[in-house]
Amino acid sequence: MNSKFIVIEGLEGAGKTTARNIVVETLRAHGVQDVVFTREPGGTPLAERLRELIKQGMTDEKVTDKAEVLMLYAARVQLVDNVIKPALARGQWVIGDRHDLSSQAYQGGGRGIDQQLLRSLRDTVLGDFRPDLTLYLDLPPAIGLQRARQRGELDRIEQESLAFFDRTRSRYQELAAEDNRIVTIDASQSIDAVNADIRSALQQWLRQQGLHPVEQESR
Amino acid sequence: MNSKFIVIEGLEGAGKTTARNIVVETLRAHGVQDVVFTREPGGTPLAERLRELIKQGMTDEKVTDKAEVLMLYAARVQLVDNVIKPALARGQWVIGDRHDLSSQAYQGGGRGIDQQLLRSLRDTVLGDFRPDLTLYLDLPPAIGLQRARQRGELDRIEQESLAFFDRTRSRYQELAAEDNRIVTIDASQSIDAVNADIRSALQQWLRQQGLHPVEQESR
Repeated sequence: MNSKFIVIEGLEGAGKTTARNIVVETLRAHGVQDVVFTREPGGTPLAERLRELIKQGMTDEKVTDKAEVLMLYAARVQLVDNVIKPALARGQWVIGDRHDLSSQAYQGGGRGIDQQLLRSLRDTVLGDFRPDLTLYLDLPPAIGLQRARQRGELDRIEQESLAFFDRTRSRYQELAAEDNRIVTIDASQSIDAVNADIRSALQQWLRQQGLHPVEQESR
Repeated sequence: MNSKFIVIEGLEGAGKTTARNIVVETLRAHGVQDVVFTREPGGTPLAERLRELIKQGMTDEKVTDKAEVLMLYAARVQLVDNVIKPALARGQWVIGDRHDLSSQAYQGGGRGIDQQLLRSLRDTVLGDFRPDLTLYLDLPPAIGLQRARQRGELDRIEQESLAFFDRTRSRYQELAAEDNRIVTIDASQSIDAVNADIRSALQQWLRQQGLHPVEQESR
């Protein structure tokens, strides 16, 4: 079976790291051992430098919405061309902490950048490259932000208003509804219930891809 | 008279700094004293950080053509929104060492990035904002590079092949031919002749804008 690119998406504090662990565990149970992790923005030397600029901003200058989205796409194309595509070509699976959907939701929904512009930028930069599966962890922003705050100091984007995150979540929900490669997980449930939903959604998808648990295969 | 945005363009070693001095001197002779200088990529704190990344590249990672052009536009929108437009609004004239035409020529001609893509990026990022006048210093690349080499170590872009700069120059020439706001100056002449041509071209343009030498006005 060809290797796949699976992305975990959601607001700050939605539980993306825990979800990643469940995904890895489930993949291993299906015989997929060779996995590469990415995070966005970042994941290459240049992309990490851009991540710093995006996350920290400048003390003495406003980062314009357009500069932010252009830096995000610069970081993304570095990651896709230099890391993700080569890994997939080597037969490794890639698990991404965020990918393009984040820009569509945060910059399109949160910042209000024109959706047509974002799509045109995506198509220009990435062509038809898309994740094979996206797990979107859906959560009311207030809950996610509370969790993120408990983890420590908030970065420039995490300091946005609740209204910003409400718009971001709405866009996430809209985009998830219109794309069958995006599975929505109710991340407001207990951790056990969230984990069970992720496991179950991934198992079902893997089965559709023709991949079955290793135990069953070896019987 | 409204303030204007004048850009000086050309290959490495074409004599942009000398040209800038002639432009300033000529503007002063026409009563324009309040002038702001910009250079691209750069000219704001964030844009200068991006300039470093673009010029130096990464020791351990290839900078893709697309990431390069996206970073250039991120730097440009910061400069336009945070420096150039506010200066023009305050009544200051702006003299730019490079602007969008450089991306069209270097990334479009030199790197071979699709021209339609670059135009769409320009329109998306800058809308209809354009320089009022561009002085393009035209020069065979071999001559310019020799001058640039004498100035010291070449950066990542200056280290490109002669063929790269030939393609860049051709694109500059094509774009200059189709836009009457771009004046081509033959920069392969003696310095005195180049300076005289710049002065004369600018004087003529200023006259068309209704601006006359201060001496004549005070007679």
